[in-house]
Amino acid sequence: MELTTDVVVLGAGSAGLAFARAASGLGASVVVCEPHSVGGTCVNRGCVPKKLMHQLAHRRPSRSDRALGWQHDPSLDWSTFRSAMRRYVGDARSDLRDELVDVARVIEDAGVIEGPGRVRAGQHRIACKHIVIATGAAPRRPEFDGVEFACTSEAMFELERPPERLAIIGGGYIGVEFASILARLGAGVQLLTHSVLSGFDADLSRFCTDALKGHGVGLRTDVEPCGIERSQTGALQVRLREGSDPAPTDVVLVATGRAPRTSELTADRMTLELDDDGAVVVDEATLQTSASGVYAIGDCSARKPLTPVAKAEGTALARALYGSGSAEVDLKFTPSAVFGLPPMASTGLTEAQARDRFGDSNVEVACKRLTPLEHGAVQDPGPHEQSLVKWVLHEQVAVGCHLAGDHAPDVIQPISWLLASGTFRPGDIEQHLRVHPTATEELAAVLDAG
Amino acid sequence: MELTTDVVVLGAGSAGLAFARAASGLGASVVVCEPHSVGGTCVNRGCVPKKLMHQLAHRRPSRSDRALGWQHDPSLDWSTFRSAMRRYVGDARSDLRDELVDVARVIEDAGVIEGPGRVRAGQHRIACKHIVIATGAAPRRPEFDGVEFACTSEAMFELERPPERLAIIGGGYIGVEFASILARLGAGVQLLTHSVLSGFDADLSRFCTDALKGHGVGLRTDVEPCGIERSQTGALQVRLREGSDPAPTDVVLVATGRAPRTSELTADRMTLELDDDGAVVVDEATLQTSASGVYAIGDCSARKPLTPVAKAEGTALARALYGSGSAEVDLKFTPSAVFGLPPMASTGLTEAQARDRFGDSNVEVACKRLTPLEHGAVQDPGPHEQSLVKWVLHEQVAVGCHLAGDHAPDVIQPISWLLASGTFRPGDIEQHLRVHPTATEELAAVLDAG
Repeated sequence: MELTTDVVVLGAGSAGLAFARAASGLGASVVVCEPHSVGGTCVNRGCVPKKLMHQLAHRRPSRSDRALGWQHDPSLDWSTFRSAMRRYVGDARSDLRDELVDVARVIEDAGVIEGPGRVRAGQHRIACKHIVIATGAAPRRPEFDGVEFACTSEAMFELERPPERLAIIGGGYIGVEFASILARLGAGVQLLTHSVLSGFDADLSRFCTDALKGHGVGLRTDVEPCGIERSQTGALQVRLREGSDPAPTDVVLVATGRAPRTSELTADRMTLELDDDGAVVVDEATLQTSASGVYAIGDCSARKPLTPVAKAEGTALARALYGSGSAEVDLKFTPSAVFGLPPMASTGLTEAQARDRFGDSNVEVACKRLTPLEHGAVQDPGPHEQSLVKWVLHEQVAVGCHLAGDHAPDVIQPISWLLASGTFRPGDIEQHLRVHPTATEELAAVLDAG
Repeated sequence: MELTTDVVVLGAGSAGLAFARAASGLGASVVVCEPHSVGGTCVNRGCVPKKLMHQLAHRRPSRSDRALGWQHDPSLDWSTFRSAMRRYVGDARSDLRDELVDVARVIEDAGVIEGPGRVRAGQHRIACKHIVIATGAAPRRPEFDGVEFACTSEAMFELERPPERLAIIGGGYIGVEFASILARLGAGVQLLTHSVLSGFDADLSRFCTDALKGHGVGLRTDVEPCGIERSQTGALQVRLREGSDPAPTDVVLVATGRAPRTSELTADRMTLELDDDGAVVVDEATLQTSASGVYAIGDCSARKPLTPVAKAEGTALARALYGSGSAEVDLKFTPSAVFGLPPMASTGLTEAQARDRFGDSNVEVACKRLTPLEHGAVQDPGPHEQSLVKWVLHEQVAVGCHLAGDHAPDVIQPISWLLASGTFRPGDIEQHLRVHPTATEELAAVLDAG
């Protein structure tokens, strides 16, 4: 079947959906090829079910509840949770699908680029002006013996029941989130990693390390797993290059990064430049790949593999192609959150980045751990019952903010807008009035102390 | 006993403490007269124990917990809560007392102004250059028959157990907070009032009304209580001027505003100008009263009876007297929070105020109710399981923001700083990246829809 359209989008995840919506709104005719579920990783196997699982863990009664007077002996009906998660994800997916079919023709096959302006998808051959690659990424498995015994993050949403013992390989945000969540749900969790939240500010990373220990996670840093063996009883044994292997476990989760889904993008004679990790190489200003008229957005180009970046790239590219404006997305103040317990959030520069950029003597920081009122009834709060506030300042102007606490992912958003102004001086906060009693008061108090 | 000092402060609540700390830091010698507890209303009988009680209610397992899979049958040990609250408040008070004695001489008697520069407090006669009145306010009781059978907010922290039936007279923030909290803790609550959150934005007030009903509060608006009778069984009956009296109740809480504590400020021949409500009249630029060298800060002058305003006035006055700068406090962007369930928060202008000031045709609003992910597993969410986002815009610049949701009181803080810049255009938010999934994303989404 032959089709002609303005643009073919490969993939209906966060990036592809945002592009399709914006392009259609600007009058372009859009065909979307998606062999799997509309919504991509975020809705189906990432952010959304992860945050529901985070809510489940967050709501487990804690000693802070007991210290306030609540007495209970809760039990968890995992099948209720799975049904609720499936329904929520299913509803979100079907809403997105409904929106998508309103703005684009959807083909339920993978699209393959045969050449500039030519895409094949199942029975369809499509002629078009532009091609947009938005195929996303998938969990990357390390290469060592027995890695087939491990599962990846996607399987965590399909568990028949929470494991009693879980070993997680990798201390990035995905590893940290599942470690916190499963530990809070009662699993014995071991986290085996080179480092914890290595791309984040060092104070936030230390906070996270301490909070994981507070939850009873068995944390081994500076280690490199090199194999997994399965015993006759079914128990799994992770081997470490450094020796002194951890205790056996029931489930091994590998959370060692994500690989762009780019291996089957093009037909034989068509080539696209990929980097060493398999990410599609794009020009930052235009999001165009090495092939004219072929663009890439979202995790497949691996600029910053986050849902909001994928959405922003999709919208910006549509405007650049069919409206006005640049396809460039400013990633300088990309807020991001780690849904640990408590959650953490960051925007702007880490202290180390700021010192690199501006020089040690031009950077000031204010950093404080504190016990928020919600854990105030606990007599001797542990690190996981604390929160953190950190400002990174250059000539008194905020260039970075790093938070931990229940409100961190929500509060970081307007703080990111403040930082983007380039003129926000937290030292001036004291001229403003603060809501009392809130955790956010500490955004100001941390500076008063200095 | 004769004393000489730079300044005498009457009252060691939020205003007096902030003044004493700042004045001492600037080199002034300070005497503070406080016959009751250091910390004033906020720490001892207001914000702090109220927020602990709010936490207790917030943490009661709900149908959102059950929908996610948690099964429990919780019971509340009220005596544990009371001990925890007393310990927390006691610790906060004693920390403040320790800080205060480091910076001021504390006299545990009420100070009485005998004349400019002359204060008597118990055995002490104090000569000083400046006098600062910071005596705060106390709950106001309406005048009708049987009002002596009612209690005020302060008694809510001394309850032997939560009442089974509670009638609240007054729909301001205090009435709304206790109605939400006690209903959530299982009491049968009736709220009898002229209106709900009348000073707030109308959409927020409607949201609050609906949320109260969602919690099962029996809400009667447009009514005026005119008496309380006590039956032989001890039950209390509120009489309404409009007739059709509500059901009998166990406890009646009057939450009909607060009266400045100014009746015993001055000795016989000394006079101070008070307004009709008994508030000390001050000049806004200098915070000076009708008497030279005598100033008033915080709730006793009733400019805006909020803890952050009291603190800001205390700090500003100290700087004006002993450092540099004006005593004027800009109240334009005073964020405030109502700790209902969910909490609500506001900053800047209400829609009505903006229309008044700028004219109907120059004001735009964006307003949306939504179901946050934390209640997403509930099949048919009620109004108390929703949240609200509202922007008030003048020529596309944000002049007001009104929120409801668990994060509202924390998120409103940085939003208030954005509004204070006078140039923040929420329409530009879409250029910024948003953390996903968070409630704050809706700050932007509410505009996309428009």
